[in-house]
Amino acid sequence: MGKIKNAFYAQSGGVTAVINASACGVIETARHHRQQIGKVIAGRNGIIGALTEDLIDTSKESRSAIAALKTTPSGAFGSCRYKLKSLEENRAEYQRLIDVFRAHNIGYFFYNGGGDSADTCLKVSQLSKTSGYPIQAIHIPKTVDNDLPITDNCPGFGSVAKYIAVSTREASFDVASMAKTSTKVFILEVMGRHAGWIAAAGGMASDEDTQIPIVILFPEVTFNRKRFMTLVAQKVKRFGYCSVVVSEGVRSSDGGFLADQGLRDAFGHAQLGGVAPVVAGMVKEDLGLKYHWAVADYLQRSARHIASKSDVAHAYATGAAAVKMALAGKNAVMPTIERVSDQPYRWKVGEANLKRVANKEKMMPRSFISADGFGITARCRRYLEPLIRGEDYPPYQKNGLPKYVQLKNVPVKKKLPESFKV
Amino acid sequence: MGKIKNAFYAQSGGVTAVINASACGVIETARHHRQQIGKVIAGRNGIIGALTEDLIDTSKESRSAIAALKTTPSGAFGSCRYKLKSLEENRAEYQRLIDVFRAHNIGYFFYNGGGDSADTCLKVSQLSKTSGYPIQAIHIPKTVDNDLPITDNCPGFGSVAKYIAVSTREASFDVASMAKTSTKVFILEVMGRHAGWIAAAGGMASDEDTQIPIVILFPEVTFNRKRFMTLVAQKVKRFGYCSVVVSEGVRSSDGGFLADQGLRDAFGHAQLGGVAPVVAGMVKEDLGLKYHWAVADYLQRSARHIASKSDVAHAYATGAAAVKMALAGKNAVMPTIERVSDQPYRWKVGEANLKRVANKEKMMPRSFISADGFGITARCRRYLEPLIRGEDYPPYQKNGLPKYVQLKNVPVKKKLPESFKV
Repeated sequence: MGKIKNAFYAQSGGVTAVINASACGVIETARHHRQQIGKVIAGRNGIIGALTEDLIDTSKESRSAIAALKTTPSGAFGSCRYKLKSLEENRAEYQRLIDVFRAHNIGYFFYNGGGDSADTCLKVSQLSKTSGYPIQAIHIPKTVDNDLPITDNCPGFGSVAKYIAVSTREASFDVASMAKTSTKVFILEVMGRHAGWIAAAGGMASDEDTQIPIVILFPEVTFNRKRFMTLVAQKVKRFGYCSVVVSEGVRSSDGGFLADQGLRDAFGHAQLGGVAPVVAGMVKEDLGLKYHWAVADYLQRSARHIASKSDVAHAYATGAAAVKMALAGKNAVMPTIERVSDQPYRWKVGEANLKRVANKEKMMPRSFISADGFGITARCRRYLEPLIRGEDYPPYQKNGLPKYVQLKNVPVKKKLPESFKV
Repeated sequence: MGKIKNAFYAQSGGVTAVINASACGVIETARHHRQQIGKVIAGRNGIIGALTEDLIDTSKESRSAIAALKTTPSGAFGSCRYKLKSLEENRAEYQRLIDVFRAHNIGYFFYNGGGDSADTCLKVSQLSKTSGYPIQAIHIPKTVDNDLPITDNCPGFGSVAKYIAVSTREASFDVASMAKTSTKVFILEVMGRHAGWIAAAGGMASDEDTQIPIVILFPEVTFNRKRFMTLVAQKVKRFGYCSVVVSEGVRSSDGGFLADQGLRDAFGHAQLGGVAPVVAGMVKEDLGLKYHWAVADYLQRSARHIASKSDVAHAYATGAAAVKMALAGKNAVMPTIERVSDQPYRWKVGEANLKRVANKEKMMPRSFISADGFGITARCRRYLEPLIRGEDYPPYQKNGLPKYVQLKNVPVKKKLPESFKV
C-alpha cells in the first residue's frame, strides 16, 4: 500500500467541448493502474478545490459515467480562473497545497488548462524540490485559443474551429439566398482575444467545391476601416453578398479593442462586448448595406454536438498520456500533439518541458494570413484541415436532446482542521 | 403533349434549414409524374423571379443534386421578401405573372413560405377565376416562427427549436463550470419577433434527467424587470448560475421592443438589434453578476448540421404532398402537418384552405407558458418534444465541412419581349 498514491486532477480556465474527454483519458487510464494510482481525486472548481480541500471522489462514479465524459462538453468538476502567485508572494498557498496533498496521499498532480494553468502546474512541480514533499505535476493542454507553444495544436481548439467553419458556411448559404432583397452582409463574432486561430477557421467555410465570399478580421491585423469596406463592397458587387468573421480581439489603429469604441447604454455608459454590432454599424454607415450579425460566445466552445473527431481524440490521448508520464516518473512536463504528416494526417503524442510552455503565447504565423490581411493562406488551410476533420456525435436522448452526463461529484471527507480562504 | 404543364416553384421570406427539403419533395415527386408535369421551373429569388422572368430550369440538375437539397440549408434558388399588392392596387403585376406563366406553359404554382407568402399564393390562386388563365396555386408551409394557423407545426421550426434547445443545454453546462469564479448568468437571444415558439424551445434544454436553471423572456409576456431580476437572483443563489433565453421580440411595458431602448453608438445614434446585451447590462446593473451573452441570429435557422429529423420529414412530405394535391386538381390549398398522437408521435399530411391560412398568426397558447411567465409548461413540452426529436445529419466532406449542394441554376431562356421592373 505504501507505494500507492492518489492522483489529483483539476480543470482550469475557460472550458471547452472536449476538456472532459481529457478527464476521461486521465481517469480511465488511472483505473487501469490501480497498483500505482489509488483514486483520482478531482478539485471542485479547479485549483480552488485543492486550496479549500473541496475535493471530489471520482471512484464513486460508474464506469459508464466516466466513459460519458468523452461526449460531454464543459468542465464536469467545475473550473476556475485563478492563478497561483509566486512562492515569494504567497507562501501560504503552497504550504496549503502540500497540506492537502499530504492529507489525501496525493502524489500526482494533473492540471488541465491553458497558458496560465501551465504556469500554476510548473509552480506545483517545483514543490517537491522546494518543500521536500514528493509530487509529480503534469500539465494537460487545453485551450480554444490554440495559443500554447510547442504542441502542434491545443485540444479544445479543433472543435471550436469546426463549429465556426460549419456555422460560417451555413449562415453564408442563408445570406446568399436573402441577398437579392434583404441582408447582404453577415457578420459573425468569434472568440480569440489575442490570437486569430478561431477567426481563421471561418475561412475554412469556403473551399474549392463551395466558394463563399468571406472577409476575416484578425486580432493580429490592425483594423483599417477603409480597406475593409472596399473589400466588402467588392465582394457584394461580385457575389451579391459577403460574410465577415470578426475576432473579438480585433484592434483599431489607436491600439484599443474595436469592441470598446462603440456602444453606450441609454445613460451613456460604455457597454461591454460585441464587436459584431460595431462592425455592422460601420457597414451600414459606410456602405448603406443591410446586415445581420451574430455573436457565438459560449455556443462555440461548448458545441459538443459538432465536435471534431480529431479534437476528441487529441483530448483523450493527452489525458491518457499524462497518466503514463506520471507513472514513468516524470515531472514538470506536458503531453503535446506532434504532427507527423499533413496528408494523410498522422500524429502522435510528444512531450514538452513545462518551463518551455508556461506563459508563452503562440500567435498565428504571418504566413497563415493572406497578403491583404483579410483571409487565410493555403498553408493555413493545410494546418487547420486535419484539426476539424471527422464528426464525433454524442448520443441523444429520446426527446431529441444530447445525452450529457452530470456526475454525482461526491465530496471527499475533509481531513484538515483549518479552512482556507482564497 | 397538350395536357402536360410545367410547374413553377419558389421560395419566399426568411429561409430555414429545411426549406430545400421541401423543394426536394416537390421536384422529386414532379419527376415521378412526367406525364402530367413537364419541368419544374424555379423562380430565382422567389416571386421576383416570376415577375422578371428570371427563371431556373431545374431539369438541368442531376438526380443526386436534387437529392442533396434534402440535406442543404437555406434557399437553393434564392428567396425574397416581396408581397404582391392587391389586384386593385397593382394589376400590372398580376398581368405580368400570367404573361410569364403562359409563355412558359406553367399550370402549377408552388409557393414555399410563411404567412405573407400564403397571401401571395392565395392571390395567384384566384388568377384562374379573375383572368381566365388556368393556374393551380398550392402553398407549402415554411417558417421558423411556427406561426401559421391550422397546421400543427411549420417545417423549419423544429430544426431551429432543436438548435436552440441543444445550444442552451451546452452553453448552460459551460456556465455551470465557470460560475464559481466567473460568469454566473448566460443570456441567449433567439428569433421570434411576435411569437415565442423559438424561445420556448430553450426551455427544453432542461428536463427530468438534466436539470438546468433557465429563465425565458417571451414576446407574449411584457418584460417586468423587477420580477425577472428576482427570479434570476433566486436561481443563481440555488444553482450557482442561470441561463436566460430571450426572444428578440420581447417588449417593455411601454410597448416598444426592449432591444430598441438600449444601445447608442459613439455618436448617440440608436443602434439596431441585440436585446441580449441590453438584458446583460441590466443584470450587471441590478445584480452585479458577471454575464456572457450570445446572439444566434442566422446561425439558428441555417443549422442544418443539427436539424431535427421530424422537421426534415415534415418539410419533404409537405413538398411532395403539394405536387400530389396539384395533380388531384386542387387549388388554393396548403398541405398541413396533422398530429395524430403525441406518444408515440404519429402524424400525417392534411389539407387547409388557403383562405384560412393567409395573414393569420398563431401565437403561443397561454397554457404553454408557466404561471409566472418565465417558463414552459408540461403541455408545451408535450407539443415541442416530437418536433425536435431525431437527428438527420448531412454528409460531410473529407475536410470536415458539411457537403451542401450549390445548384447550377441554369436560366430558362426568356420568351417575353419586355422586361419588368419590381
